[in-house]
Amino acid sequence: MHDQERSGPVAILAGSGELPLLLAERVRASGRECRLLAFRGFASRAARAQADAIVGLLDLKGTLAWLERWAPQSLALAGGLRRPDAGALLDAYSAFRSRSEIREVVARGDDNLLRGAVGVLEDRGFRLVGVRDLAPELLAEAGQYGAHAPDSASNESIEVGMRLLRCVSPFDIGQSAVLVGHRVIAIEGPEGTDRMLARARALRLRGLLRRPERGGVLVKAPKQGQDLRVDLPAIGPQTVANAARAGLSGIAIASGLTIVIDRAATVHEADRLGLFVIGRPEPGL
Amino acid sequence: MHDQERSGPVAILAGSGELPLLLAERVRASGRECRLLAFRGFASRAARAQADAIVGLLDLKGTLAWLERWAPQSLALAGGLRRPDAGALLDAYSAFRSRSEIREVVARGDDNLLRGAVGVLEDRGFRLVGVRDLAPELLAEAGQYGAHAPDSASNESIEVGMRLLRCVSPFDIGQSAVLVGHRVIAIEGPEGTDRMLARARALRLRGLLRRPERGGVLVKAPKQGQDLRVDLPAIGPQTVANAARAGLSGIAIASGLTIVIDRAATVHEADRLGLFVIGRPEPGL
Repeated sequence: MHDQERSGPVAILAGSGELPLLLAERVRASGRECRLLAFRGFASRAARAQADAIVGLLDLKGTLAWLERWAPQSLALAGGLRRPDAGALLDAYSAFRSRSEIREVVARGDDNLLRGAVGVLEDRGFRLVGVRDLAPELLAEAGQYGAHAPDSASNESIEVGMRLLRCVSPFDIGQSAVLVGHRVIAIEGPEGTDRMLARARALRLRGLLRRPERGGVLVKAPKQGQDLRVDLPAIGPQTVANAARAGLSGIAIASGLTIVIDRAATVHEADRLGLFVIGRPEPGL
Repeated sequence: MHDQERSGPVAILAGSGELPLLLAERVRASGRECRLLAFRGFASRAARAQADAIVGLLDLKGTLAWLERWAPQSLALAGGLRRPDAGALLDAYSAFRSRSEIREVVARGDDNLLRGAVGVLEDRGFRLVGVRDLAPELLAEAGQYGAHAPDSASNESIEVGMRLLRCVSPFDIGQSAVLVGHRVIAIEGPEGTDRMLARARALRLRGLLRRPERGGVLVKAPKQGQDLRVDLPAIGPQTVANAARAGLSGIAIASGLTIVIDRAATVHEADRLGLFVIGRPEPGL
């Protein structure tokens, strides 16, 4: 019903965080037209101020009406939608799918929930694209960011951590983990990276991480089979600040598969706080 | 220097929790003599009251002096020693091992730390045994405990959860995990089972677990290669109460490899709160 070859704007469906506006800016900078649909309760104040339309996440009919009107050449979901309430997303498309399909989706992980939402949009003929298609310059490059480099202990932690993420990935958990030495301190669950870092900080404050007082790494990579158009892992200056609060030495991310929100500010924060940030190719992912 | 065939009492080195006294009671009930060495800051008030000696965890010399005096036929470490401060244990045996060995131990997981301590005792000729040797009746049996049985959704969660534990086990993490449906909600880190359950509860309260309001399981099993003499996973009435607070339907444990602290009270609490408790043979562990 929709033609893949059609012209028209790029539509960005804006969840939380800075990514939606960053992406809109990159799309416009490349000379393409852009429409911003902000989800109430998720999109930032700035994104809502610039939005062409604001809808409730529950309002899939409203969302589809705007999309039909704009007839975008492609469509990107950007920013957090899982939090604070993924159940809302489910309610939203319960009208479009059978009960048994929904039950199937609910029983599985977050990825499946997002894939379900993506399925509804694709059923309607919309072409879903991701950051990789629209603004690959937002993805992490391989190599060292900023002034600090991981020492050999950190490099070992990174090796073990990336292996761990690959291993738990089929269980739809663990976009990130914290390691101190070879020791796994925390694996990210639905609480998200920032709360996991707060947990690592609490363990350190309670004396559970042993000497040295400082050290350890945050590793972050997408899950295997994750729809890379929808839910790439991301870091930014805030991630660096939270990692520093947890006493970590640095952050390793899968290059090409992780978004760096505001690279300049991220590097500045890392240099200021003495942390390394490094992008690593992770061919297994 | 010590003879494996010698007679003498069973010595129990008491960490935190109820297991040390429970074990002492079982040893005495079987007609063997028993000596209780309580670690200050770890052993419960009741254990300290009944102890034959109380030493600091840092005081490995004192510990060895008592053990030399008692010349026990065998020795068991019972109860929690890792928390609140595993670093103390390390300090304790730093006098007995080389710096490089210690560094090796520190870089690895908790299991290695305990194995290191065990190594020091075995170097001195003491024969270390576990709950399995002294009181196998404290280990979980296979089958259903109490009145409630897992439904098919819970059985699926248990399957996925046990597979997950097996998969993360080589990383020396994850004696337990919480699943809702096929979705992994939390993997236990150094914070321990009770804090992990509190996290699962917080996720539910924040609306991150979606409907149904109730459901999900706690799975618990030893790590592969874990020294089963030293650090078996355990559940008890408090675990059941915390699982109920997190809205879970029940608990699955690896039979023969998990301790049930006070079976009667555990079953009573499970029945009262409507939770299942089930022991499952986990041959892969």
